[in-house]
Amino acid sequence: MTAPDRGGDRGSLLVVSAHAGDFVWRAGGAIALAAERGDEVTVVCLSYGERGESARAWREGRKLEEIKELRRAEAEAAAAALGATTVFLDAGDYPLLESRELVDRLVRIYREVTPTTVLTHTLVDPYNGDHPAAARMALQARVLAQAIGYEAPGEPLGAPPVFCFEPHQPEMSGFTPNVLLDVTPVFERKREAMRCLPAQQHMWDYYTDLAKRRGVQLKRNAGPNLGLAHATMGEAYMRLYPQVTAELS
Amino acid sequence: MTAPDRGGDRGSLLVVSAHAGDFVWRAGGAIALAAERGDEVTVVCLSYGERGESARAWREGRKLEEIKELRRAEAEAAAAALGATTVFLDAGDYPLLESRELVDRLVRIYREVTPTTVLTHTLVDPYNGDHPAAARMALQARVLAQAIGYEAPGEPLGAPPVFCFEPHQPEMSGFTPNVLLDVTPVFERKREAMRCLPAQQHMWDYYTDLAKRRGVQLKRNAGPNLGLAHATMGEAYMRLYPQVTAELS
Amino acid sequence: MTAPDRGGDRGSLLVVSAHAGDFVWRAGGAIALAAERGDEVTVVCLSYGERGESARAWREGRKLEEIKELRRAEAEAAAAALGATTVFLDAGDYPLLESRELVDRLVRIYREVTPTTVLTHTLVDPYNGDHPAAARMALQARVLAQAIGYEAPGEPLGAPPVFCFEPHQPEMSGFTPNVLLDVTPVFERKREAMRCLPAQQHMWDYYTDLAKRRGVQLKRNAGPNLGLAHATMGEAYMRLYPQVTAELS
Amino acid sequence: MTAPDRGGDRGSLLVVSAHAGDFVWRAGGAIALAAERGDEVTVVCLSYGERGESARAWREGRKLEEIKELRRAEAEAAAAALGATTVFLDAGDYPLLESRELVDRLVRIYREVTPTTVLTHTLVDPYNGDHPAAARMALQARVLAQAIGYEAPGEPLGAPPVFCFEPHQPEMSGFTPNVLLDVTPVFERKREAMRCLPAQQHMWDYYTDLAKRRGVQLKRNAGPNLGLAHATMGEAYMRLYPQVTAELS
Amino acid sequence: MTAPDRGGDRGSLLVVSAHAGDFVWRAGGAIALAAERGDEVTVVCLSYGERGESARAWREGRKLEEIKELRRAEAEAAAAALGATTVFLDAGDYPLLESRELVDRLVRIYREVTPTTVLTHTLVDPYNGDHPAAARMALQARVLAQAIGYEAPGEPLGAPPVFCFEPHQPEMSGFTPNVLLDVTPVFERKREAMRCLPAQQHMWDYYTDLAKRRGVQLKRNAGPNLGLAHATMGEAYMRLYPQVTAELS
Amino acid sequence: MTAPDRGGDRGSLLVVSAHAGDFVWRAGGAIALAAERGDEVTVVCLSYGERGESARAWREGRKLEEIKELRRAEAEAAAAALGATTVFLDAGDYPLLESRELVDRLVRIYREVTPTTVLTHTLVDPYNGDHPAAARMALQARVLAQAIGYEAPGEPLGAPPVFCFEPHQPEMSGFTPNVLLDVTPVFERKREAMRCLPAQQHMWDYYTDLAKRRGVQLKRNAGPNLGLAHATMGEAYMRLYPQVTAELS
Repeated sequence: MTAPDRGGDRGSLLVVSAHAGDFVWRAGGAIALAAERGDEVTVVCLSYGERGESARAWREGRKLEEIKELRRAEAEAAAAALGATTVFLDAGDYPLLESRELVDRLVRIYREVTPTTVLTHTLVDPYNGDHPAAARMALQARVLAQAIGYEAPGEPLGAPPVFCFEPHQPEMSGFTPNVLLDVTPVFERKREAMRCLPAQQHMWDYYTDLAKRRGVQLKRNAGPNLGLAHATMGEAYMRLYPQVTAELS
Repeated sequence: MTAPDRGGDRGSLLVVSAHAGDFVWRAGGAIALAAERGDEVTVVCLSYGERGESARAWREGRKLEEIKELRRAEAEAAAAALGATTVFLDAGDYPLLESRELVDRLVRIYREVTPTTVLTHTLVDPYNGDHPAAARMALQARVLAQAIGYEAPGEPLGAPPVFCFEPHQPEMSGFTPNVLLDVTPVFERKREAMRCLPAQQHMWDYYTDLAKRRGVQLKRNAGPNLGLAHATMGEAYMRLYPQVTAELS
Repeated sequence: MTAPDRGGDRGSLLVVSAHAGDFVWRAGGAIALAAERGDEVTVVCLSYGERGESARAWREGRKLEEIKELRRAEAEAAAAALGATTVFLDAGDYPLLESRELVDRLVRIYREVTPTTVLTHTLVDPYNGDHPAAARMALQARVLAQAIGYEAPGEPLGAPPVFCFEPHQPEMSGFTPNVLLDVTPVFERKREAMRCLPAQQHMWDYYTDLAKRRGVQLKRNAGPNLGLAHATMGEAYMRLYPQVTAELS
Repeated sequence: MTAPDRGGDRGSLLVVSAHAGDFVWRAGGAIALAAERGDEVTVVCLSYGERGESARAWREGRKLEEIKELRRAEAEAAAAALGATTVFLDAGDYPLLESRELVDRLVRIYREVTPTTVLTHTLVDPYNGDHPAAARMALQARVLAQAIGYEAPGEPLGAPPVFCFEPHQPEMSGFTPNVLLDVTPVFERKREAMRCLPAQQHMWDYYTDLAKRRGVQLKRNAGPNLGLAHATMGEAYMRLYPQVTAELS
Repeated sequence: MTAPDRGGDRGSLLVVSAHAGDFVWRAGGAIALAAERGDEVTVVCLSYGERGESARAWREGRKLEEIKELRRAEAEAAAAALGATTVFLDAGDYPLLESRELVDRLVRIYREVTPTTVLTHTLVDPYNGDHPAAARMALQARVLAQAIGYEAPGEPLGAPPVFCFEPHQPEMSGFTPNVLLDVTPVFERKREAMRCLPAQQHMWDYYTDLAKRRGVQLKRNAGPNLGLAHATMGEAYMRLYPQVTAELS
Repeated sequence: MTAPDRGGDRGSLLVVSAHAGDFVWRAGGAIALAAERGDEVTVVCLSYGERGESARAWREGRKLEEIKELRRAEAEAAAAALGATTVFLDAGDYPLLESRELVDRLVRIYREVTPTTVLTHTLVDPYNGDHPAAARMALQARVLAQAIGYEAPGEPLGAPPVFCFEPHQPEMSGFTPNVLLDVTPVFERKREAMRCLPAQQHMWDYYTDLAKRRGVQLKRNAGPNLGLAHATMGEAYMRLYPQVTAELS
């Protein structure tokens, strides 16, 4: 498996997610891995998921602002468990509306954070329009941040690789998992982060099962030679741009 | 850029090509890189390309056996320049016919060479039926070699990653270059290998131009941060199976 | 052929169409079938098709408001012939502009009508931008209506299946007809509805021919065993979400 | 959910699988559902999976014929548990070779069994060449059996719908699950059938987890209205030909 | 519309069809157009369609040889009506088996006929395996005929454009009609040719309706400016290789 | 190669490009060819590319308005060299924002110019969001301009063919070059136009190499018969709508 030598430079991982909880379920392992090896991790939550991802709170009769506060606290706790910093843009959800202003805020974050890797949603998700909206903005901002003529503080960005995390119904979302990430060493931390979201307790098992399933596929794609543990846990990603490499492996 | 640490283990690169010259034009850089870092490289030429890729020799009035001898000598010289070993199966070209026997020979080579990486043609090429035929056999043999119940000497194979090299008309062949390999450090060796194929002198420039073009794209996908030289030379590949990794980068 | 037993419950069919005439040509059979078996059918016309689908009226020198009135009357007559209720949102056509407000109106209709089945345009149509715009809004509203946190009267929606009706140039619009509906029993009613649109008389034959053609394909996909009549009439649809079923047939 | 009224006629389900175990893991629920409602179910195993799917037996040092006998006994027990009849063609695996003769045997089975529904593998599976080979033969034989001029006993076949069952790595195999089958009522029988394959005990959990996952998706695509139980178990299928129906639902 | 000036050179149209009748229904207009402008037209029928396309003759109790004779006579009459020459290879149908020998015969025909344009079936047709088999052989032979080293009389072929004619269920066969041919001037000749196939009388209307439908689309893609007659008749084709041109139009 | 006879009518080529320089690099050959044969050529530059395509000017410390003036002057000089007229809409770049007003301006241009051929960007370009935005507006305006009911001076438009020019990374942008244009006769003029853009001198070689590469492919798709010169220069295009033709060639 590839494990590039970055020569002492500290990486910077930027995660752009539509709702407050997405990064935990879908990318908790990648975040914990990055944090553990010393990378800076910034999670941008475009909304709190207050309308579309908080069914239980609504059924309990809570108010909008209360729900937003609740989701924010949960997300901060989960991010802390994973070793990440959070930024909340409170742009509203269901629908999350694309706007020139929101994209501009993302450009400024890119210029400040100078990510070496970017994670976001897939560009297709027929079950949740906020996810592709977030992805489109994340990708658009990444390109704008590269232009010297774009007015925002900081230097023009390089071209950090982008990985989409797994949507709920992958085959319906054109999700081809062309990268399988071994998250076994940090899975306990991901579990801890998931436990920070008690309202979605049924998801704990669901995403543990999914990690097992992706782990089995990871082993199948790596072969016996790698000596992977029986209980390999995986996360699936879709790389959007060509991989740039000095070795085919 | 990724440059995995393999912990001292020597890699093994297996290249399965339809005709004698394919590996030089399409994968010369990858082969030279592997050889330079100490990997074993085995190039299997299923045919000599005696009928379909030797137009000049035919126009000069040469005979079939003579042409095969000529192509073999050229390929051996080019492989030597790149640091690779050649195996010629002399299965005939135009058409290269798929057969149970030929696949079995490939299985035996897989079991013997135990490749850590495999290179072959694309599965689609409307300009040359031999290329997909070679790819289908290379892929089928790879799967068969994994089965303990397949009768052939050696241990069951792991699941080495497979990369397709660039076809002549990539967009017509469903070729999505999802891996861009930096071959700048070994491009002089590739040039040397190309010079071993004097009958196709017009290809020398063509593939040097292509390497420049893929190099420009490589830089565009890597960003300015990488400090890549102006004259980056690249080779494009299409990875067929998910990448298994311990880090997203 | 499948003919589910809904246990006495009355279904509710919602049709979201860009222009006033679309539902007649493209889904007249499905509407009549639903009405005949006692389902409630609601047709939402986002515009009257006053600019883009009323060439003859413009050539006759009519004014905009007059044309809208004309198209509305025709659509009402056709809907009555099919057994459907109409809702006109008068959002303008050529172009039909997507907006937050229009989507919100659709969400409210979903919540009120609580459809068990939804019909709309395809998401691709290079010949008419209004069609995909209507489809995008219909699909977005369906997802929003499912969220308990979305502020609109009524209960959160379930997940009714969505079927796209046939565009004018199906192969250019990514239209894969994965459902062929037998409309033979109600084709006379569809013909009657078409006759309510006298300005497009050339379409009567066109869509009768199309129904024959889809009928031939329907028989071909059903096999001789079904004992389908020689003159089977069909309508083609593309199901967007997985079919949920208790039996494979 | 659709549950067609077949008017008293007994259905006939034909399952064409490459290896002896495939039908249990991938279609056990569909088979048990069909058997429970009184359909005849015939499972054709083209091979025993003796080379490619019997790793444990090989590691235990068993001989080829012994392994075939073992796999046959297991498959028969599992089929009995599900309510199906088995036919073994012993055509060899790894590779399963396509042949005119094997296709002819399938044509004869089609003509004899006159299936109302057909299940087989996907046409793409980069991890196992036998699966697509089985699918190609199953599909080719279905078309040949329809021709009155094809010399084989029995009447020309109709056009039974074909469903592909889920491959191991669905996204890599172009598997779009456009049908989700509720197998909750018979899942205990499927579990029983799985227990007839003790050598692959790790698969019991794997396929139970998968059924849960597909069950969650099934509920998501059906909506709350259906009143589906919390523990819905699902199997995913890909319908290859257009659905012929008298109602959109 | 394009109407290239070939500078006095006579064109050569080669049609490779699986069964005896295919060329009439699917390409009758293109053949008649070519013949009328003085091109040589050669129709190769790989089989007579004796098993798969002669249901009526079988139901009348005719014998195999008799049916072949019948189909041959009909095809010859139809070809004469269109102005084409026929070559019958009698390779058998249902299934039409690909073979090295059959491909070689096609190579020799290519070398002799030196086509400037080639027509054949689509590479996908889930309703009829013979059609893709014919297309694969036609395409393979075209590439082989280009190689100077391929042993067959005649000069190496150029790279004539290839057009697939319309399959029965275009959307199911990946048929994207990227070329719409105006066959209005010769439609009467096509009708005459169709009348040479009396056993398939229901097809006369079917293909006349289809020509009208493709004609409507042709007008829609050409715009009012072309002054096309109301009753434009069209045939749809799919060009497989890039169009080479001196003008974008 | 096709070279239609337009019967004396003068054609009208409309090029819609996102930034001031795009038309030179990507379509200079097509423009010069059209101009040379007497067609009117109108190039619409939606923006000057002042932010995203003027890195050197920014690095030299120039101001926004100055850069716009500079780019405009360059574009005008290049257009003059090619024989085209320019229209600058100054809509801003990075991002180029889609708007109802901008589309309306394009509709009016369509109605005035009445193009017989349209060139624009691809609908996908993950490296530059302005390109697809320009393409979407160009295509939307083309459809609107066809409607008699759309309020704008002039007659309803026909349906001119649309060709997308080649993006920077074609395989990543879904660019299938289905048309290869021979620009050999005018390549010197294209070179001259490129020299009007001195800030991007490294592009001169890049696009000359690309023209050689597309020229090689052009020859490969035309065959030896055409007698194309060794140094054929090509431009690749993707035709979006079916070609309407009176001859298959």
